[in-house]
Amino acid sequence: MSAFDALGRPLRLAFIGGAAPSMIGQVHLRAALMDRRFAVVAGALSRDATRGEASAAEYGIAPERSYPDVATMLDAEARRSDGIEAVAIVTPNDTHHRFALAAITADLDVMLDKPMTNSVAEAVDVARAASGRGVALVLTHGYSGYPMIREARALVAAGRIGDVRSVQVEYLGSGLAARVEDAPDAAKRWRLDPARSGPSLVLGDIGTHAHHLATYVCGEDIATLSAEVGALMPGRRVHDYAQLRFRLASGARGAMTLCQGAAGVENHILLRVIGSEGHLEWRHPAHNELRLCPIDGPPVVLSRGQPWLSAAATHATRFRRTGHPEGLHEAFANLYSDFAELAAARRLGIAPDPLATTAPGAEAGLAGLRFVAACLASDTAGGAWTELER
Amino acid sequence: MSAFDALGRPLRLAFIGGAAPSMIGQVHLRAALMDRRFAVVAGALSRDATRGEASAAEYGIAPERSYPDVATMLDAEARRSDGIEAVAIVTPNDTHHRFALAAITADLDVMLDKPMTNSVAEAVDVARAASGRGVALVLTHGYSGYPMIREARALVAAGRIGDVRSVQVEYLGSGLAARVEDAPDAAKRWRLDPARSGPSLVLGDIGTHAHHLATYVCGEDIATLSAEVGALMPGRRVHDYAQLRFRLASGARGAMTLCQGAAGVENHILLRVIGSEGHLEWRHPAHNELRLCPIDGPPVVLSRGQPWLSAAATHATRFRRTGHPEGLHEAFANLYSDFAELAAARRLGIAPDPLATTAPGAEAGLAGLRFVAACLASDTAGGAWTELER
Amino acid sequence: MSAFDALGRPLRLAFIGGAAPSMIGQVHLRAALMDRRFAVVAGALSRDATRGEASAAEYGIAPERSYPDVATMLDAEARRSDGIEAVAIVTPNDTHHRFALAAITADLDVMLDKPMTNSVAEAVDVARAASGRGVALVLTHGYSGYPMIREARALVAAGRIGDVRSVQVEYLGSGLAARVEDAPDAAKRWRLDPARSGPSLVLGDIGTHAHHLATYVCGEDIATLSAEVGALMPGRRVHDYAQLRFRLASGARGAMTLCQGAAGVENHILLRVIGSEGHLEWRHPAHNELRLCPIDGPPVVLSRGQPWLSAAATHATRFRRTGHPEGLHEAFANLYSDFAELAAARRLGIAPDPLATTAPGAEAGLAGLRFVAACLASDTAGGAWTELER
Amino acid sequence: MSAFDALGRPLRLAFIGGAAPSMIGQVHLRAALMDRRFAVVAGALSRDATRGEASAAEYGIAPERSYPDVATMLDAEARRSDGIEAVAIVTPNDTHHRFALAAITADLDVMLDKPMTNSVAEAVDVARAASGRGVALVLTHGYSGYPMIREARALVAAGRIGDVRSVQVEYLGSGLAARVEDAPDAAKRWRLDPARSGPSLVLGDIGTHAHHLATYVCGEDIATLSAEVGALMPGRRVHDYAQLRFRLASGARGAMTLCQGAAGVENHILLRVIGSEGHLEWRHPAHNELRLCPIDGPPVVLSRGQPWLSAAATHATRFRRTGHPEGLHEAFANLYSDFAELAAARRLGIAPDPLATTAPGAEAGLAGLRFVAACLASDTAGGAWTELER
Repeated sequence: MSAFDALGRPLRLAFIGGAAPSMIGQVHLRAALMDRRFAVVAGALSRDATRGEASAAEYGIAPERSYPDVATMLDAEARRSDGIEAVAIVTPNDTHHRFALAAITADLDVMLDKPMTNSVAEAVDVARAASGRGVALVLTHGYSGYPMIREARALVAAGRIGDVRSVQVEYLGSGLAARVEDAPDAAKRWRLDPARSGPSLVLGDIGTHAHHLATYVCGEDIATLSAEVGALMPGRRVHDYAQLRFRLASGARGAMTLCQGAAGVENHILLRVIGSEGHLEWRHPAHNELRLCPIDGPPVVLSRGQPWLSAAATHATRFRRTGHPEGLHEAFANLYSDFAELAAARRLGIAPDPLATTAPGAEAGLAGLRFVAACLASDTAGGAWTELER
Repeated sequence: MSAFDALGRPLRLAFIGGAAPSMIGQVHLRAALMDRRFAVVAGALSRDATRGEASAAEYGIAPERSYPDVATMLDAEARRSDGIEAVAIVTPNDTHHRFALAAITADLDVMLDKPMTNSVAEAVDVARAASGRGVALVLTHGYSGYPMIREARALVAAGRIGDVRSVQVEYLGSGLAARVEDAPDAAKRWRLDPARSGPSLVLGDIGTHAHHLATYVCGEDIATLSAEVGALMPGRRVHDYAQLRFRLASGARGAMTLCQGAAGVENHILLRVIGSEGHLEWRHPAHNELRLCPIDGPPVVLSRGQPWLSAAATHATRFRRTGHPEGLHEAFANLYSDFAELAAARRLGIAPDPLATTAPGAEAGLAGLRFVAACLASDTAGGAWTELER
Repeated sequence: MSAFDALGRPLRLAFIGGAAPSMIGQVHLRAALMDRRFAVVAGALSRDATRGEASAAEYGIAPERSYPDVATMLDAEARRSDGIEAVAIVTPNDTHHRFALAAITADLDVMLDKPMTNSVAEAVDVARAASGRGVALVLTHGYSGYPMIREARALVAAGRIGDVRSVQVEYLGSGLAARVEDAPDAAKRWRLDPARSGPSLVLGDIGTHAHHLATYVCGEDIATLSAEVGALMPGRRVHDYAQLRFRLASGARGAMTLCQGAAGVENHILLRVIGSEGHLEWRHPAHNELRLCPIDGPPVVLSRGQPWLSAAATHATRFRRTGHPEGLHEAFANLYSDFAELAAARRLGIAPDPLATTAPGAEAGLAGLRFVAACLASDTAGGAWTELER
Repeated sequence: MSAFDALGRPLRLAFIGGAAPSMIGQVHLRAALMDRRFAVVAGALSRDATRGEASAAEYGIAPERSYPDVATMLDAEARRSDGIEAVAIVTPNDTHHRFALAAITADLDVMLDKPMTNSVAEAVDVARAASGRGVALVLTHGYSGYPMIREARALVAAGRIGDVRSVQVEYLGSGLAARVEDAPDAAKRWRLDPARSGPSLVLGDIGTHAHHLATYVCGEDIATLSAEVGALMPGRRVHDYAQLRFRLASGARGAMTLCQGAAGVENHILLRVIGSEGHLEWRHPAHNELRLCPIDGPPVVLSRGQPWLSAAATHATRFRRTGHPEGLHEAFANLYSDFAELAAARRLGIAPDPLATTAPGAEAGLAGLRFVAACLASDTAGGAWTELER
């Protein structure tokens, strides 16, 4: 029996950020509600009171629990017998450190948008606080919630492709293909300000996703890397491109290409893991599939819902049959589901379902920031091989 | 402004059927909740009181509003000031007629699983009742909720492929590929009983979907058809296969192949509409894409989230950007969202958003049953061309 | 050792038809030469002497062996010690009967473009003559020369998908999508004249291909069928569309859709064979692949050049490794290669390599004409089930 | 009128190397013969006289023109009035320099397998000799013979994707995925000996292909690069992996991943060129297609045979209609066809068809060797940015 089932009721969740026109807030909201493991009961949705109140209604939050700021919310909710038990933080990156620490200090479980923070030092703070308090903290590296990514991780762990020898990751988007600096929308405006989005837009925005996908599936972190980071768009002040070589802890080689300025690309992600006995390939546009190509037989097309998939994949699937497509909302919901399990286990003082424990937590978030830092250090040193801090 | 926005609150919804282990009940539930347009407040989830109560908790229904049967629920809820305003009927086919009429009589809006009923006569009853009362009735032909199916319909209507000349539809599944009669699960058990699933399993289960997809996209109904209906599996008593030729009202020719006994197939649906100026092709495994292939230029890959799609497609999309996959839950949720709009409009006595009015209603449901009847009549007559009742 | 290897030299081949601007003549020529099993030494390439001579040079035929007509060629070549041993007939359909009989009478082996003739009676003539003389006769149903089609046949024969239960074939092209009647090119001009192209353009042109693909792979012929044949294009006098239901000899059901008026389609062919234990799917745009989808495991992607393919597939492959794409020229060349083997075996009075004996011969050609006749008879009878003549 | 048409006859070609069991020799042979622009009349097919003679028969070479070595052949043929006019050199890499120089000195046109030589110095020799003599020299970078690669080049040149900003190339094969050192076949044996295959197996074998594809399509060379070169297979003495960052002359960034040890990969090649106005993507398994994805409209699927393709693509196509797949033989044959045009033009002292002049010649071959040298220099310097020699 899972801890969540033992708890037997949804957890009370508050949102920090997420007021319209945030897209990611809506994704979190749908994901949080999809499996009825959370009730969204409070929020500090915006610094702008009018926007916050308007959005609260959309979130189904009662007016009296829609707060003007985080401190007020944490304070007021702590005094309620039915106060919040967890928060979802979906604010710009520069606020993650502050809000996460506040929530942890309030003994709340935390769902935190990636990247965890804007610096390694901040990430260490958050990781230490979470660990010290013992709260559950999950980062929304949503792609690792896809069932076929979990299958890939399970197959690598089971030795199905032998020893990992090479990893290739591509993450290409078109969000910065045009000169968006001239007329940024809300989501772009803070991203184009390094003080808010962090030292490297491309690394924080999509690089940490790519880093997490690769290391999650391979089951080991990057040990050292050589990176070029910069901008494809002439005159651009933020980074929109990075190209890396790396070595995993086991010595396996890797290549990663990141680009937010790829005109005409529709959020392309590729992950290929090559082992001594075969390889795996996953592409985002066909995320419900995973190709397993052994060295001594024909390629096999694994797909979401097949009965022979691993427990890890089945755990992350709602339609228990093939051919019923799920999408990114479900992937996010898988993280929320795992988060609920971890939070419930903490409240009950029991062990969570082991299948829920692969969701990216503080360690993964810290690893992501160390990855960003190493990329920038390598780039500054002309692409010199740079070890990740451990 | 939409009627739902004018209403300004979720509608109160009850479930009829849907207790575990129903898969489709969960799909309805997630779909109903996805956009916070419904609050699920009551239910008659099972004839088995224990199962019903257990499931009520999962549905978030208070114990006192979990009822042992439909009549009791309708009666009790009618007396509440906060009584239900709509029902979702997800019971076996043979009960649709009875429950739909009861709900309509109670002045409730109705979300009804397909097929609408098990006979044309019953469908006429339901359609007349719904029309007479003016309630909103939507059928969960979920595939027509996909944004790219709505785009296809919009493109045909806009003349982008010229005059429609030929339509091809395939719907192949593997649910009956093995001899499931020997050990049916719950979903199979009632389906294998014609008294419950209707006169033709394959036609009711997937044929009405294929019929609706083709006629929804082409914007016209089938006028006449020639059909073979039967079973691929030796000794099978229910239908698992049908093959049709048909003519649309405009005279365009069509072909349809339906099979539930296709070993190794993962819920394959294909729709191809060929016109004088080009054709459209959509495949379920890549449902976020639609190929538009003009006669005088290269094929174009339209995909969910592109800014140049029709209002009809954008209306049915949550991620307002490409490359963020949605799935079948969202398609169902689009029907629920349209249903909420229609129901809200009725309550307010105003016109609904026109974009919500393409959801399959009683007319579509009745057309589906006439389609089934014509297929069976044609098959009985050795495949003779048979006109659909109008 | 193959008979061809035993013969130890290329066979002397003449072309009947094929002068510019024939496209199919060039395909035959490249195919005949690809494996150096034929030397093209003579030809009656055109009734137009100027065109014939001009083309002879392109074909590498010496001027003195470029003849004005077939009779002259057969007569002259019969008197040479190095006279021709085989002919390739690539003329309009109405001449196949006459030229094939003439060549057979001259004791030549015959490569004949499909359809074999324009009527069953003519086809019987040719089949009897070929059989009586014992000459090799191969029809260029080029698609059955693809290695993965041969693999499909081998897999069905080996029982890899169990008992065949259903077959689906689609063949859609765009050659008649526009009103080509207004300004036909050379290839269209004779096709649009039923006196030349036969009683049904769509059935002769692509229907016989689809018929052959299905029956070749399944290893059994169609027993009975129900067909609609007609024109999608308003006012068109020739057929451009057909839709069939059929039963194989074993009782397996089939569906076939044929269309030459599919705007924007790029020569689409689909073959799907569903058995009790799994299914096979092949699509022309990805002809180097074959999907084998078992009932109890994930889909497997077989592809040209894999070492675990059948001897039949490997026999039809030049690149003995994967990832080196072959195409339609190679498929045609496989038929020519088989033809050379059969012709060499006849000359030496020995048995041919069994792998060469699956190439479509006179029986397949006759079956194709019987298929056409049954379709037309069924259509005339309003789609009545019609048995194929045996 | 093309120079080849003006010449009006096939050119006399000899093979250097290519005896069985060479696979690449057969590919060259089929390509040379496909368009009847060459007659293969002589050969020094093997140092092993028995193998050479046996193969000569297969190549259709008369016994008296099958020579034991290159010098003998060049000498004997020079004395014939019908002596050879061109050679195809398909021997191991270490002999390219010697044989190419000998052929050039004999005033023969040269078709040369890639890489041109094993060192920059040797490549300079060959390039200078070819230039000095004015002979035609073409390298078989076969992939650049694909029509859709030529289309890609034409589209970039026409500005259809705007300014090139980023290029991604992947070339992955499985030839060295197993420990082939233990039992190498003939093709592997010399490759595993650096004295024969050159200083870096992966760079010479597939790196020069990737380099040529990228620079051919972009129309500019790599200016500087940073590379890691090594072996994925533990204990391997030759290179099977390389990972590069680079800058084109225009400053556009690039990434390249090369691997010959990718278990289960079927000769995967990807080329993606990202510009300011859109991007192009081409994948080898679907080589008949090219995706053009503009920044402001949906992706477009260009495919071989479409009438709106560039003259460059149509020039490289045999089937002048879509849906008739060509393959790698045709791509090679396109290089041979261009080679014939260049050779004919030289003989006649006239200008060749401009469409034939994009075939990779001595400059491209030299650029390839400079690319290899820069990669090795960069790798030795720990991945330091290294300019290519100009």
